[in-house]
Amino acid sequence: MSNDAFVKELVDALGDVVVTDANRLASYREDRAMFCDAGTPCAVVLARETAHVSDAVRLASAHGVPIVAQGARSGLSGAANAIEGGLVVALERMDRVLEIDEDERLVVTQPGVFNADLSRAVADRGLFYPPDPSSWEFCTIGGNLATNSGGLCCVKYGVTTDYVLALEVVLASGEVLRTGRRTVKGVAGYDLTRLFVGSEGTLGIITEATLRLRPAAHRPRTLAATFDSVHDAAQGISAITRSTVIPNLLELMDATSVRAVDRLLRLGFEERVGALVLAQSDAAGVAGEEEIAQIAAHLRDAGAYDVVLAEDEAEAALLLTARRQVLTAFEAMGTTMVDDVCVPRHRIVDLVVGVEEIAVKHDVVIGVVGHAGDGNFHPSVIFDGDDPDQAARAHAAFDDIMLLGLTLGGTITGEHGVGVLKRELLAREIGPVGMSVHRAIKDALDPRGLLNPGKVL
Amino acid sequence: MSNDAFVKELVDALGDVVVTDANRLASYREDRAMFCDAGTPCAVVLARETAHVSDAVRLASAHGVPIVAQGARSGLSGAANAIEGGLVVALERMDRVLEIDEDERLVVTQPGVFNADLSRAVADRGLFYPPDPSSWEFCTIGGNLATNSGGLCCVKYGVTTDYVLALEVVLASGEVLRTGRRTVKGVAGYDLTRLFVGSEGTLGIITEATLRLRPAAHRPRTLAATFDSVHDAAQGISAITRSTVIPNLLELMDATSVRAVDRLLRLGFEERVGALVLAQSDAAGVAGEEEIAQIAAHLRDAGAYDVVLAEDEAEAALLLTARRQVLTAFEAMGTTMVDDVCVPRHRIVDLVVGVEEIAVKHDVVIGVVGHAGDGNFHPSVIFDGDDPDQAARAHAAFDDIMLLGLTLGGTITGEHGVGVLKRELLAREIGPVGMSVHRAIKDALDPRGLLNPGKVL
Repeated sequence: MSNDAFVKELVDALGDVVVTDANRLASYREDRAMFCDAGTPCAVVLARETAHVSDAVRLASAHGVPIVAQGARSGLSGAANAIEGGLVVALERMDRVLEIDEDERLVVTQPGVFNADLSRAVADRGLFYPPDPSSWEFCTIGGNLATNSGGLCCVKYGVTTDYVLALEVVLASGEVLRTGRRTVKGVAGYDLTRLFVGSEGTLGIITEATLRLRPAAHRPRTLAATFDSVHDAAQGISAITRSTVIPNLLELMDATSVRAVDRLLRLGFEERVGALVLAQSDAAGVAGEEEIAQIAAHLRDAGAYDVVLAEDEAEAALLLTARRQVLTAFEAMGTTMVDDVCVPRHRIVDLVVGVEEIAVKHDVVIGVVGHAGDGNFHPSVIFDGDDPDQAARAHAAFDDIMLLGLTLGGTITGEHGVGVLKRELLAREIGPVGMSVHRAIKDALDPRGLLNPGKVL
Repeated sequence: MSNDAFVKELVDALGDVVVTDANRLASYREDRAMFCDAGTPCAVVLARETAHVSDAVRLASAHGVPIVAQGARSGLSGAANAIEGGLVVALERMDRVLEIDEDERLVVTQPGVFNADLSRAVADRGLFYPPDPSSWEFCTIGGNLATNSGGLCCVKYGVTTDYVLALEVVLASGEVLRTGRRTVKGVAGYDLTRLFVGSEGTLGIITEATLRLRPAAHRPRTLAATFDSVHDAAQGISAITRSTVIPNLLELMDATSVRAVDRLLRLGFEERVGALVLAQSDAAGVAGEEEIAQIAAHLRDAGAYDVVLAEDEAEAALLLTARRQVLTAFEAMGTTMVDDVCVPRHRIVDLVVGVEEIAVKHDVVIGVVGHAGDGNFHPSVIFDGDDPDQAARAHAAFDDIMLLGLTLGGTITGEHGVGVLKRELLAREIGPVGMSVHRAIKDALDPRGLLNPGKVL
């Protein structure tokens, strides 16, 4: 597709925020997902303000050019992949925290701020922004909003959408919409805010967000429990989620995951480890001691052969780093396809057992890691991408994992999104009436289908 | 409007679930709001199952008959008022709790269940459904979903939408949509669930809901603080919301409210009371003692002349009953217009002072009561409805309160909804782009405009 006239008009209008150099354009092709179609854009707008986004969208719309919004391209579903000859609106330069209001406990931010930078900025004021994807150091708030990201502490504190008070959104027409409000409650009109959160850039481009904050949490107590088998570990997790204890972190790593990070970080785990459970309680004072003791008891009852409390913050931080580095460690082992299923919490054992069977059936390595307390797992198929036979088996295993999730009453994606990767399975989960309502809303807000076409729907 | 052919077909199709008796039809005309247009329906379908709703909507749609869904008609904005000659779909007989899943901490319910009945049913299993409107004994879950109801404990636990996992919705076409899922996380597709929550029956009719529950909370400690002036009380509340304490209840009653319930319930408040603050902490053990002590200290610092801890559950229950009965007590004093503004929490003082000024300006009585910890207030204009001059001044005061809320950065409705009552002010809050997006979504889901026409938009 040649869009020379469009690119010329764009450069005339926006000047040096427009990238047209071929080498630089190539670096905006795709996110971190494997095996998803991507194209080279005709131009990238490195927006610094909302007006840049609005002007670019209006021009692209006038020329019928498809538009893809990008944050840090750390997504795992291809949702941010560029369209061949289309426009990319990159939000990475809209990277300022605009306001922190301590009295109202809210932050107003541009979309290009890294999650960890925002979290640290509000922590400096004694406040807490809970959503914490494993990729927090290199994913942006805009991407978190577009996919409704979860993270490690959402088992207690909820996901991104639970923290969004208001948005500024550039619509397909280029018009600027403001949704929501700064008050903690409000029911004037439809909940447009939460319609845009998780819509993966298909309904509009988020250019500003007002996010609710919490008071700083108490320093958590951190526990690591080792098991001979992932089955026992899953039983222990189900026991905790059935109990009245609400940990602020409850993660599972199977043997493959433990060994992968052990190779990367040299942590010295013994060979016996079949599964590792990490848990935290951030309840205050005595209540926290009681909670972590109850969690430990549930895990021991399920067969943990060792339960260790982190002795200090450094040790706790090391354990969390191990968890956060699993996907990176997998990538060092080969080509990876990271799945993202979420099942009802009493089906966790069925999921991990089912994934083991899928690995055997397709003769592939699958490492299982996840936010177990939410029933949200990332089984990752690790294989030699240069071997077509292995790749075919990996794909088959990946699809089987999603279907297993659906069979267990779960979803094809707990937090990574649909993007390109899972587009064909969406209808299977939400059914024909659900699909027709999705299409009606998409058509209402983007009648010409220019916003992130080929993604989600 | 004569809809004889429609009514005949409806009776032929659904038999004795259809009400056509004129006296009974009259009782389905309106909700609890004052001064909102209402009509007498041509028929009421007392649905007992989703198929009744679906069949009735399909027939009404074929005949171009407008459709209004009703729960308990306890709403305060006219959103459930019938349309002259239209169809009412009453959900009051769909009153069964279908399933309580203790492991997954969720409840599946029909819409006609009273909030308090559902809360008690899950409490019997050691679980907790937080949203608790003051009307909980006589409002239904379906109505709560339609207006995204708040309540007393949402200052700590959030509002209705925060607890909705999945919905079954009858669309304008009569098709049955299922949104969401039973898992705690899930991002497959748009967040349709939260689009329907709070849409006041204008996008579809909710026929089933899957609601998230919490473990039972600890027994709260309850405190009552009395002040000479509502200004001081508001200062105390702002001090608490700025602090790190998160009470599970933080309510304000002004002198008019205290005297009104005192007359109704004979509680023996002294004449001096200028404002009453009720607060609770349900933190466990020592943390709860510390929290309630901190709350008491903030209120004393702000000028409370008396701070009393409830000695037992009966005393705490009496204080909460007093709070819940305020609107009923106002109704015993005359005609009432209950407003529902929500402002940023540091503007609480400006709101209560501004409302006092509005009362003086229009020479009317305004009682102020509300969920002060959320900045959500219900200033109620109390007047003689038979006196046209008083009624005109009451209306003017009511509108001034909403405009004051907007001026302070707030919203025209924190939890009661827009309905008929606030329809003309919606555009003022959300602006022309917001209105056009609302209309696009409404047209996409209800192209012929038959679902609750004349409400919200």
